[in-house]
Amino acid sequence: MPAGEFDFIAWIRSQQCPSSLVPLPAGDDLAILRWPADDLLLIGVDQVLDGIHFDSAVHAPRLIGRKVMNRNLSDCAAMGCLPVAAVATVALSRNTGLDYARELYLGLREAADPYDCQIVGGDTASWPGKLAMTVSILGRSAGTAPVTRAGARPGDGIYVTGPLGGSILGRHMTFLPRIREGRQLAQSGVVSAMIDLSDGLSRDLGQVCGNSGVGAILEAQAIPIHEDARALSSRDGADPLDHALHDGEDHELLFTAHATPPLGTHIGTIQAEKGIFLRRNGRILALPARGWEHAM
Amino acid sequence: MPAGEFDFIAWIRSQQCPSSLVPLPAGDDLAILRWPADDLLLIGVDQVLDGIHFDSAVHAPRLIGRKVMNRNLSDCAAMGCLPVAAVATVALSRNTGLDYARELYLGLREAADPYDCQIVGGDTASWPGKLAMTVSILGRSAGTAPVTRAGARPGDGIYVTGPLGGSILGRHMTFLPRIREGRQLAQSGVVSAMIDLSDGLSRDLGQVCGNSGVGAILEAQAIPIHEDARALSSRDGADPLDHALHDGEDHELLFTAHATPPLGTHIGTIQAEKGIFLRRNGRILALPARGWEHAM
Repeated sequence: MPAGEFDFIAWIRSQQCPSSLVPLPAGDDLAILRWPADDLLLIGVDQVLDGIHFDSAVHAPRLIGRKVMNRNLSDCAAMGCLPVAAVATVALSRNTGLDYARELYLGLREAADPYDCQIVGGDTASWPGKLAMTVSILGRSAGTAPVTRAGARPGDGIYVTGPLGGSILGRHMTFLPRIREGRQLAQSGVVSAMIDLSDGLSRDLGQVCGNSGVGAILEAQAIPIHEDARALSSRDGADPLDHALHDGEDHELLFTAHATPPLGTHIGTIQAEKGIFLRRNGRILALPARGWEHAM
Repeated sequence: MPAGEFDFIAWIRSQQCPSSLVPLPAGDDLAILRWPADDLLLIGVDQVLDGIHFDSAVHAPRLIGRKVMNRNLSDCAAMGCLPVAAVATVALSRNTGLDYARELYLGLREAADPYDCQIVGGDTASWPGKLAMTVSILGRSAGTAPVTRAGARPGDGIYVTGPLGGSILGRHMTFLPRIREGRQLAQSGVVSAMIDLSDGLSRDLGQVCGNSGVGAILEAQAIPIHEDARALSSRDGADPLDHALHDGEDHELLFTAHATPPLGTHIGTIQAEKGIFLRRNGRILALPARGWEHAM
């Protein structure tokens, strides 16, 4: 099989589905989209790096492609918007075969297709370095105001869409973005702020509180702890709650609401006093942000 | 100075200019843009990798940031659209300082600001690997139909916006995107196809011909040869014309027109017969595509 960038691009073009929203798909200098009038456009980007966000010696390329797309879809979920289109880059390790590159692309598609999110462009290169991928995503408001991180108000309840912690055991590669939940929450009219849990509950709640100018108190006994957090604790001796509070890459939605939302587990309350606090066994403790931060 | 991803992000946010098109800039899960009604949306992405597209031991970070943004702006030029917004990723080598990261960002801004192109999002990570950057760009048609690669017809003239070859001597880092030229050409109504010269004249003309279902004949004596191509030839002994025909990263515009365009040097003619040919000293030779292709 001939192996070269142009063969890969030709193959990708053969995989594209026609869409009335995309009069000119990948294959020109830029792709062209028709943007629906009155729709706000939402845009973001995320990357995954070998040895940091995945391990190419362990994780299949299909899973790697899925992960980078799902991270972006999870951002759409957190805004309550609908994903529309994506562009991707891949920096391949030299001597990576065409089959491997195809698997990466099929992983992107496997994640995006259920939401009719079109992959409309990309860039491929190879280098002596390790595998790096990025996806940029476009979402549309489609009649529902996007939910930012900045709307939390004192008295709002704090909620999550699922159990937390221990994603490093495998869920960080296989999570599903909460697109439908995010959309339902945005449409409910009671959700005041929302974020997807990528850096850990303590840190991401800190983002919501920082952007909203408020503080929060979490109820320890209410926080849903994932069985992966318990499994990890049985190995490392840490408190399972610590994994639920501080582990990254859960990709559940964390949100605040001024009335009972249609879904989610109630884990705390927004308050005027700044800082993140944890009520546990009748005591209230300041909770340091210990989630994921890339050192520079 | 504290060095961490969140400090860098806070600094970037402080650099953002308010824009009526961007009700919510970087700092949430996604940025929000108001998309002008009736405007087509154009989108693409490009990456630069240390050791492939630049050499971090030689090139200042400001120049690296400029290059990756300008590659994307050059794609906007080739479609005749106006750049609107961009998102960027950077994978930093571990132990890269905050000052270096800021210089990369300022390079992005230096390239984008002249065109009022807003940087509305990004993702930063560090890893043991070498520096990798991506930019995804959004452009808008703004009342002018985008020019694709697919409209060339037999009898159309072939043109370039400037002299070619030898960009490796430095121009590949410092070129300016032909945004205004591309816009003027798209608005002229006589341009049938356009592409920016990133992979070399022979290969990029092959893209235009392939997408348009036509062939081309180039006039050797008409092709403008950059002084860098001559300088390079004096070192490597190659024919300067070969550098002009096959070197990559000129980032001039290559276009076809069915009548005299408002600018550009006439270098050949589109014909029905497939293939790329070169007329030189009265002889016609088939021209192989020898431009840049990433091995995989």
